[in-house]
Amino acid sequence: MAKIAMKFGGTSVADIERIRHVATLVKKERDRGNEVAVVVSAMAGETNKLVAWTNDAATPPGSNKHPLPDQREYDVVVAAGEQITSGLLAIALGAIGVPARSWMGWQVPILTSATHGSARIEGVDGEMMNESLAKGEVAVVAGFQGVAPHDRISTLGRGGSDTSAVAIAAGLKADRCDIYTDVDGVYTTDPRIVPKARRLEKISFEEMLEMASLGSKVLQTRSVEIAMLHRVPTRVLSTFDPDRGGTLLCDEDEIVEKKPVTGIAYSRDEAKITLMKIPDRPGIAAAIFGPLADAGVNVDMIVQNVSEDGKRTDLTFTVTRGELARALAAIEKASEHIGYRELTQDANVAKVSIIGIGMRAHPGVAQTMFRTLSEKGINIQVISTSEIKVSVLIAEEYVELAVRALHSAYELDVA
Amino acid sequence: MAKIAMKFGGTSVADIERIRHVATLVKKERDRGNEVAVVVSAMAGETNKLVAWTNDAATPPGSNKHPLPDQREYDVVVAAGEQITSGLLAIALGAIGVPARSWMGWQVPILTSATHGSARIEGVDGEMMNESLAKGEVAVVAGFQGVAPHDRISTLGRGGSDTSAVAIAAGLKADRCDIYTDVDGVYTTDPRIVPKARRLEKISFEEMLEMASLGSKVLQTRSVEIAMLHRVPTRVLSTFDPDRGGTLLCDEDEIVEKKPVTGIAYSRDEAKITLMKIPDRPGIAAAIFGPLADAGVNVDMIVQNVSEDGKRTDLTFTVTRGELARALAAIEKASEHIGYRELTQDANVAKVSIIGIGMRAHPGVAQTMFRTLSEKGINIQVISTSEIKVSVLIAEEYVELAVRALHSAYELDVA
Repeated sequence: MAKIAMKFGGTSVADIERIRHVATLVKKERDRGNEVAVVVSAMAGETNKLVAWTNDAATPPGSNKHPLPDQREYDVVVAAGEQITSGLLAIALGAIGVPARSWMGWQVPILTSATHGSARIEGVDGEMMNESLAKGEVAVVAGFQGVAPHDRISTLGRGGSDTSAVAIAAGLKADRCDIYTDVDGVYTTDPRIVPKARRLEKISFEEMLEMASLGSKVLQTRSVEIAMLHRVPTRVLSTFDPDRGGTLLCDEDEIVEKKPVTGIAYSRDEAKITLMKIPDRPGIAAAIFGPLADAGVNVDMIVQNVSEDGKRTDLTFTVTRGELARALAAIEKASEHIGYRELTQDANVAKVSIIGIGMRAHPGVAQTMFRTLSEKGINIQVISTSEIKVSVLIAEEYVELAVRALHSAYELDVA
Repeated sequence: MAKIAMKFGGTSVADIERIRHVATLVKKERDRGNEVAVVVSAMAGETNKLVAWTNDAATPPGSNKHPLPDQREYDVVVAAGEQITSGLLAIALGAIGVPARSWMGWQVPILTSATHGSARIEGVDGEMMNESLAKGEVAVVAGFQGVAPHDRISTLGRGGSDTSAVAIAAGLKADRCDIYTDVDGVYTTDPRIVPKARRLEKISFEEMLEMASLGSKVLQTRSVEIAMLHRVPTRVLSTFDPDRGGTLLCDEDEIVEKKPVTGIAYSRDEAKITLMKIPDRPGIAAAIFGPLADAGVNVDMIVQNVSEDGKRTDLTFTVTRGELARALAAIEKASEHIGYRELTQDANVAKVSIIGIGMRAHPGVAQTMFRTLSEKGINIQVISTSEIKVSVLIAEEYVELAVRALHSAYELDVA
């Protein structure tokens, strides 16, 4: 007998018929003799409706302004979506003879930070749920929500149900967490760009974490972090075709064949800012990045040229496109203090990354990347590396070309 | 400074615009220097949608049967309706500069019995809410819901938000509870039948309790019981025209002018069963009403004729129409044990009642009722009385005639 956490997203529970389909998948898992906890999202469309209501309610009568709603109350409204799904799935399970009960975030409890609207899970107390599972009940957990200090309802931000699922699996000390979604696993790269992309049977937590944070949209970064931290074996598989197998996130040493590169990720959500001819003196980096941090801008890649004359140099960094306007405003406000001569910006850039734990043992992996891009005439604007990945910034128009060329160069294409 | 509980029903919060209107009414009350707790229902239509979903989810795939959903999970789903409204109203209050926070049943907490779907409020702990009110926050309470033993979400059954409001007022030791609804108060009788019906400025708790349980639909019976038990001055007034004044439920001794009859109620939800020629022996009542109680049937009026020969007699009783089929089945199952010769039933009956605390001091009040009905040629089938009311069962077709005649006879018509 094993203990399994299952997670179904919004499209998997979009209407009552699909909720009943999910109930049959849960029953199948339980009929194998397993204890089962299921985490569900809101029915597709519900969250958007509730969010729109909170925005309307936040607009004072006769006003054209659209202030943000109180985030604590936003959470109360939006969390209702998952509450509804979890109750409905528990009912649907009961209707096919499977004893089940729903669990809200505060009932488990799933403890979170007080950062309403994008709260961080700080702990899951699995004791009461485990008692319920031991009685033979299926636990149906409202995803995406938790309870903040002072018993306030909190939500984790978009996509948070993956995180709920992995955290619940960790809290219950489950043997596996199965994320059912609309794709059948993690691929070597986006199959929409590379039709020869291959589904990975296994991927290490570390690699998946890089994939998620470098642009792969299959799992939310925070959910992979928690899976890695608690070593929760986590599978990604298709709700509509669960027997195809999916992808298992696991420890590095469970992966026998270690190619130098496991996958290729890309992100178009990038923008580049270059400050020309800044004084080449100690403290200049602090003068630039201090104001950006104060403005809440996350800086990703940074490159500083070697100064030619020892007096002036150029500095380039990247931010997400959504934060570009905020970053420019912060820099311009601090312009006198920084003392740059010119500022250029470019929102038509993209980041392409190669990821693989095999990289550690294979020197020259980055060189293959640079040569391949060069052969295609693609200019590399910025480079950043870590132990298991290399990222490059290129012009956005070359993304597909670069991803396809790298996929072939690292022998990832389906045979 | 006073502490006021306000309650708004589903039509008062039917959409975002109306929720914003409610926010202005709450602001007005707070601007008078009062501490305010607001209890809200689900947006009109939401509860019906959620109930329909629970029924669909309870139907096994391919089945034509419609089993009841698990009532505990029904509560989880349906309670989401009030959760959404309370969050939205708190947001709308914030948007016009009124600090506010929402309270779910489990947060207050509003403790209820475990009778899911129609739970009974057993206590309200007002301590945390009072602390919040003292900080100047408006408390926005999700009506209709509470928390049952073992931290399960419960609901009070239809119309339960009135009960929530009065219970919250009692728990907070509020100075008044204002129930905002789509009528502007309690009338001497239903104005749709008697256009000359008069709005009552005041009515005693005892009278209102009789009015509610004898057919007046303005307030839910349980809410009046709680108001009476805790002596919570409770006003009924119109959401859309709150300045018209409404009706105050109060202690008997606050009412100066005590007419013999305060109001006239009626109920068409009646059915009559007569058992002919039952043995006139000890234990016969138990033989009849035991099986009915076991079948969960509530018996209302009972009349047993005097036996002519000391051996056989007739017995008549009433039940609600919804329980008629169940009552007949229970009686027929016990027929050998009861030993009646014949059973007749009549679902075309109605109950008309006169209510008034003045009755105690005015003998002959019932006589006026009987004479008035007799003059109109209306036959009285069953009579039941208490200290402050007289109810009669008549043929349904005479309801309007009876109510109008009695309204005049007791001088209740508007001058």
